Amino acid sequence: MINTQNIEAINTEFADYEPKQILKRVLADIDNIAISFSGAEDVALVVMAWKLKKDIKVFSLDTGRLHPETMQFLERIRKEYKIDIEFLSPEAAQLEAFTRAKGLFSFYEDGHEQCCGIRKIAPLRKHLQGLSAWITGQRKDQSPTRSNVPVAQIDKSFSTPEHTLLKFNPFANWTSAQVWEYIRMFDVPYNPLHDQGFVSIGCQPCTKPIGPNQHEREGRWWWEEATQKECGLHKPSVIATDS
Amino acid sequence: MINTQNIEAINTEFADYEPKQILKRVLADIDNIAISFSGAEDVALVVMAWKLKKDIKVFSLDTGRLHPETMQFLERIRKEYKIDIEFLSPEAAQLEAFTRAKGLFSFYEDGHEQCCGIRKIAPLRKHLQGLSAWITGQRKDQSPTRSNVPVAQIDKSFSTPEHTLLKFNPFANWTSAQVWEYIRMFDVPYNPLHDQGFVSIGCQPCTKPIGPNQHEREGRWWWEEATQKECGLHKPSVIATDS
Amino acid sequence: MINTQNIEAINTEFADYEPKQILKRVLADIDNIAISFSGAEDVALVVMAWKLKKDIKVFSLDTGRLHPETMQFLERIRKEYKIDIEFLSPEAAQLEAFTRAKGLFSFYEDGHEQCCGIRKIAPLRKHLQGLSAWITGQRKDQSPTRSNVPVAQIDKSFSTPEHTLLKFNPFANWTSAQVWEYIRMFDVPYNPLHDQGFVSIGCQPCTKPIGPNQHEREGRWWWEEATQKECGLHKPSVIATDS
Amino acid sequence: MINTQNIEAINTEFADYEPKQILKRVLADIDNIAISFSGAEDVALVVMAWKLKKDIKVFSLDTGRLHPETMQFLERIRKEYKIDIEFLSPEAAQLEAFTRAKGLFSFYEDGHEQCCGIRKIAPLRKHLQGLSAWITGQRKDQSPTRSNVPVAQIDKSFSTPEHTLLKFNPFANWTSAQVWEYIRMFDVPYNPLHDQGFVSIGCQPCTKPIGPNQHEREGRWWWEEATQKECGLHKPSVIATDS
Repeated sequence: MINTQNIEAINTEFADYEPKQILKRVLADIDNIAISFSGAEDVALVVMAWKLKKDIKVFSLDTGRLHPETMQFLERIRKEYKIDIEFLSPEAAQLEAFTRAKGLFSFYEDGHEQCCGIRKIAPLRKHLQGLSAWITGQRKDQSPTRSNVPVAQIDKSFSTPEHTLLKFNPFANWTSAQVWEYIRMFDVPYNPLHDQGFVSIGCQPCTKPIGPNQHEREGRWWWEEATQKECGLHKPSVIATDS
Repeated sequence: MINTQNIEAINTEFADYEPKQILKRVLADIDNIAISFSGAEDVALVVMAWKLKKDIKVFSLDTGRLHPETMQFLERIRKEYKIDIEFLSPEAAQLEAFTRAKGLFSFYEDGHEQCCGIRKIAPLRKHLQGLSAWITGQRKDQSPTRSNVPVAQIDKSFSTPEHTLLKFNPFANWTSAQVWEYIRMFDVPYNPLHDQGFVSIGCQPCTKPIGPNQHEREGRWWWEEATQKECGLHKPSVIATDS
Repeated sequence: MINTQNIEAINTEFADYEPKQILKRVLADIDNIAISFSGAEDVALVVMAWKLKKDIKVFSLDTGRLHPETMQFLERIRKEYKIDIEFLSPEAAQLEAFTRAKGLFSFYEDGHEQCCGIRKIAPLRKHLQGLSAWITGQRKDQSPTRSNVPVAQIDKSFSTPEHTLLKFNPFANWTSAQVWEYIRMFDVPYNPLHDQGFVSIGCQPCTKPIGPNQHEREGRWWWEEATQKECGLHKPSVIATDS
Repeated sequence: MINTQNIEAINTEFADYEPKQILKRVLADIDNIAISFSGAEDVALVVMAWKLKKDIKVFSLDTGRLHPETMQFLERIRKEYKIDIEFLSPEAAQLEAFTRAKGLFSFYEDGHEQCCGIRKIAPLRKHLQGLSAWITGQRKDQSPTRSNVPVAQIDKSFSTPEHTLLKFNPFANWTSAQVWEYIRMFDVPYNPLHDQGFVSIGCQPCTKPIGPNQHEREGRWWWEEATQKECGLHKPSVIATDS
């Protein structure tokens, strides 16, 4: 059994595992576990897990600002694979107070933290409290902020004194090229935005296509510093507080 | 003073008024009144009112499914005219239950009523309870369902036994051509979707551009019957119940 | 037999004819006749004629600046109806001299006449010299410059001392609404640009979508005066010279 | 002086040169030389040469099927840098015979050779006969068909018994990343299609955006074999005949 005691040993054990082996072990060992699905290339993770376990739990952050194409793609996966996706929504009261005070695009002026806090982090935090572990598509090669992503870890951002949460990143050691090889080899459906120059995909106002020979994170929050390009889902080491 | 007693007489009096005169009278007489702004051509109403009263109240339904262009346009009006727009959001719990059960596009299968109920009607109903009256851009020429829209009325859909709500439609007798003449004559900014074939504009999945010589409502909920093409904001005569 | 002697009588006779009757008579009477097809709503004319005569001659001006969507649409009609469309191209030497001297967008600065002259009028003039008559989709309601379009006429622009050319405009008395009713009633394929706000469609740089309640010709050569909005194909009364 | 006798020695000499040094030498040594500009990333070559010699000769193949964005971009470079670009056009008679016989998209069925032959190769061949040498943006890393591109060579495809043509590829040893580094470092304007997922850019119907981790030539003539993906401009070793 994987648990908070042996998680570091597990992480060491997983070092040479393929993503599929990691998923197999994790899905077998932990019942109350779910995959976070952003509607981008992490579709590879969802489909890989679905092949191992048809009734996997998946959740997705319906921030209210996703591209129409991403909404259609999430629905396509839900229907074609018959996966029960939970779409997490922001709290009306928080959102109304925020948008009345600052309008709909304040992130371009004072940073994405407050908006992500309401539209992503708060609904995620609430949802994670009902889980023992979650699985993400994070990779070391995605950005400087992710270069140390472990395969298995205690999620210090979303654990609480009463509830320790585990987090698994089966793609941590894969490259973008490997993920795309998987998608193309197995004909996994993918977000059509990927054929319009988008690599990393998040909310519509905070994502743009990248040009030739640009790094994928240059298409996200491009008005901010590279070291700030996390929305808080994956803050490396701090116990985040509600924002 | 305009009130529930004299509203029918007022409606008769307003018969030959221009929209501006109606707005002038209504804004002068009723304090606790707000304009509903959808981000489409009703911008003419917002700007016309703003010229009469700089601190008009405006609200907009941020359904979570608007076009990116509409979000940008709403923000543009908020900033350029310095209008305090209240963006009303759907309740997270209702939305999560709905999207988990039916996914993100159920309206194409069983109609738009449930989705509009959660994303538009419920937030609107809650907001209207704090107002004495509201103002909309409805016109008789918009659709068969609106051919009897009065200029002034008691809003039977959103009044409750404890609270009678008034509703004003200053454009009721204007044609689409008149609204657009106003927009172009006074250089009122407009939603850029109008230059891509969109006339009536609502949520992204439920709106499409119309072709030459099509009626504007053919671009809304096109898979449903013409007589069903209301979202519940403007149900003509029934006391709607919460959906 | 329709000929240059009786053309005015014919025009009078045609006054109350439906387009289909006009086409029937004209196609029966004149062998060496062809339809000019722009890839816009004049598809109604092409299909109406094709129903009467499967081997109708059609030509289209492949200016080198059409929208990709228009090129695809022309090909679709060619293939689906098995119509032998002649695509007329501009002369390389004329075009090269022009683009080297003035670049690719000089029409925005000194008017569309020179560019239309090379890309449309010269190839058309050459082609018309091999015909006895041509048929166009012109309508009186299209623009102030077309309000007197007759159904049948001698084409004074493209006749020469040696060769008198007849011209027929079977839609002259139809409205835009009637053309679109025909297209929709008989499920005639149409250029997909019509669903993106385009009404009148010509070359890509000289055509734009129109907004609500704008006249269709406002989407053509919008930087020029309304009375100049002809490319020379349909100059009303002058004997045009080669440009 | 660079000439047909010493071209192989020159090629060896250029082996370690930077593109700028190559251009400097070539532009100094050969008068009757011109750059071929496709409107894609070879803008780096055009601007690099322009910095060395303000009155460089540039030509571009205006095939009649370029993207509207590419046409605008070519014009932008023409105007901003005041470069005298010669736009080469296909012969009307050849084009008309071809499109009448096969329509506008025959390349999807029987390959791009015939269409490229008329729209690109014939006008190019004619133009090259007036030059002593030409300069292209070809690189070894672009495709398997280009992995042996030399920096300096006799152009065997376009030389004739009476006229030996030289060809220079100053970017032969540069990578895509180096070209883009140059474009971004020196703020060289670039085709906006590059921000929509396009890498290699040719005619509109024969170019598409590529997805993440795809090779740039996968966006060109994607329905054909990788080893056929040349339009004939750069056939490696044969004396091509007129098509």
